[in-house]
Amino acid sequence: MNALPEVKYLMTPGPVPIPDFVFDALKTTPVHHRSPHFTVLYESLQKGLQYFFQTHNPVLIFGGSGSAAMEAVIQNLFDPGDAVVITQNGKFGNRWVKTAAGLKLEPVEISSPWGQVPHVQDIEATLLASGKKIKGIILTHSETSAGTALNLEEICFRLKRTHPDLMIITDSISSAGILPFYMDNWGIDAAVSTSQKALMNPAGAAFIALSEKARKKLKPATGFRYNALHMYLEAHQESSVPLTPPAQILSGVDACLRWYQDQGLPKIWNQIHSNARIFRKEMLKLGAILPAQSPSDALTAWGFENLNMIQIQNQLLNNYGILVEGGQDVYKGKYLRTAHFGMLKTEDMVRLTQAIAEITSSMLNP
Amino acid sequence: MNALPEVKYLMTPGPVPIPDFVFDALKTTPVHHRSPHFTVLYESLQKGLQYFFQTHNPVLIFGGSGSAAMEAVIQNLFDPGDAVVITQNGKFGNRWVKTAAGLKLEPVEISSPWGQVPHVQDIEATLLASGKKIKGIILTHSETSAGTALNLEEICFRLKRTHPDLMIITDSISSAGILPFYMDNWGIDAAVSTSQKALMNPAGAAFIALSEKARKKLKPATGFRYNALHMYLEAHQESSVPLTPPAQILSGVDACLRWYQDQGLPKIWNQIHSNARIFRKEMLKLGAILPAQSPSDALTAWGFENLNMIQIQNQLLNNYGILVEGGQDVYKGKYLRTAHFGMLKTEDMVRLTQAIAEITSSMLNP
Repeated sequence: MNALPEVKYLMTPGPVPIPDFVFDALKTTPVHHRSPHFTVLYESLQKGLQYFFQTHNPVLIFGGSGSAAMEAVIQNLFDPGDAVVITQNGKFGNRWVKTAAGLKLEPVEISSPWGQVPHVQDIEATLLASGKKIKGIILTHSETSAGTALNLEEICFRLKRTHPDLMIITDSISSAGILPFYMDNWGIDAAVSTSQKALMNPAGAAFIALSEKARKKLKPATGFRYNALHMYLEAHQESSVPLTPPAQILSGVDACLRWYQDQGLPKIWNQIHSNARIFRKEMLKLGAILPAQSPSDALTAWGFENLNMIQIQNQLLNNYGILVEGGQDVYKGKYLRTAHFGMLKTEDMVRLTQAIAEITSSMLNP
Repeated sequence: MNALPEVKYLMTPGPVPIPDFVFDALKTTPVHHRSPHFTVLYESLQKGLQYFFQTHNPVLIFGGSGSAAMEAVIQNLFDPGDAVVITQNGKFGNRWVKTAAGLKLEPVEISSPWGQVPHVQDIEATLLASGKKIKGIILTHSETSAGTALNLEEICFRLKRTHPDLMIITDSISSAGILPFYMDNWGIDAAVSTSQKALMNPAGAAFIALSEKARKKLKPATGFRYNALHMYLEAHQESSVPLTPPAQILSGVDACLRWYQDQGLPKIWNQIHSNARIFRKEMLKLGAILPAQSPSDALTAWGFENLNMIQIQNQLLNNYGILVEGGQDVYKGKYLRTAHFGMLKTEDMVRLTQAIAEITSSMLNP
């Protein structure tokens, strides 16, 4: 990889840089998943994950990406033919619609343009108008493709009152540990997150927190199915996992969860919120367009009207060693995306905005 | 984890200890999966994985355990109702039978007792007797639960001549990189391996090599499905992956594959074979029972007739820092299992057999 510039500052909205204390945990703990050491690790992980999701529910440990875990949740909690409302305002909401369709559910979409989010009124209107018995709702809390966040607290509070039977599922992949998120208090039935976002680890492990109502829906698979969550719940009763887990990553995740518990979630949420505020303020001064009307603190999508964004992305990497993420789908070529979570601090936001200022200035005054 | 003895020597048949050069690769390369660096990594991985599987076919990169990858292969290459022969002489063969059943295929089992393996004659007889149109065969090359290995070369050679249309699928999870394995030369259509066995990395990534015949069977999923291999094959055309991959693990796997290419497979196979031979010779001298009649060089299952095997396992860990694996299912409590692959050398075999000699001697002469 000698021909490519070194990535000194990985500022993509996941994966994020892996801190040294996580690598030390990965390296010094070769935990075999059928050893007593794993039982200790598993129990420590439960404690940490329950804090992370703000729940007393068990958190199942799954090997695969966030999409695999979301598919597992949708497949296990619903049956073919079930009508499920899905909010869709970006690439990931769209993926859960396609996932539900692939599983022969009846997805009822609530679509908003990228940058906007559906509000509780839209959701209630859809539930009333559908005329179907809606079994559940799938909400993408922070939509990484568009850089937006739902008002999840308000939506959950209202739905719990007006539709108490509805199964509420959240894609919390880029929200848990990043934005205020209270699974139990908000009455969420299933929440999914992964190792490579707020948990600052290699990608490869996903985490599925399930309420009692959700756990009651789990049934043993006919034959063997990798994502039959019933099998994971059974193993959980013995502080274990049914299949080879990404055990080293779990050691790293455990180290990260201890850091969360030491720091406290509010302090971490505040730092991320501050990063987002500083970054956006500076970017607006530079004349940037920030397309998110309901921005997520996890990341910001940003662009400049008459400048070549690919060129900016390349110059950030080539001249500053800063890797930022391109836009996907409708944002492709128009906006770039940069993270505010992980170990990022004020100085990282300053470094990035200064680099952007220099690049755009030299593009405008060549 | 202070109360538990430190694992100094992890000798389980996967996960295996992660060498320092792999950790260095994991640590120094934060590769984002949508960066040009990932393209370079992907192409290097292809070269290495093709060497590893001895194939010119593309090798798809999948996030999840070996079981998830095997399920993906079975689901993508066959349709509900297809009759598929599956050899079954241990826990993993049994899992592929259950997986096929769960996918509504018609599994035709060829069962042998643990420790034995089905021979080509058994397989041909089954194919003749079944009276069904058999679409494929699933062979567990090295059965980790029982410590046995099929004569895969002979089986493939014969089947290619007598049943050229049969799709041949191998669970190579504990055979590729460990036992002689030649995907192209033996005419194998799909082979699966994982990161935490011969590739000496954290668990979390799986690798699926597919022949042209197998690739032709892939169809786009209706909606989105995590394990729709067609999506991975499409991304492969652009040296990419469709979903967040376990990218750090892939950097480690790349480092390991370079080591394979530097050393050469035959040298590595010879070292593993030598480890197995030395270990078994010493164990027989100690009066051990080795239940595998067709042993795999990947590992040995071993026991002592009148001794408590759990006590031996505990003493190995408590007094020597050696972690070995217990038996599963019918081997539970009767046999322990220890690996011969990874970076293990003659001195590791000697250390282990000496520890076993001391423990059994003190148990017999307390």
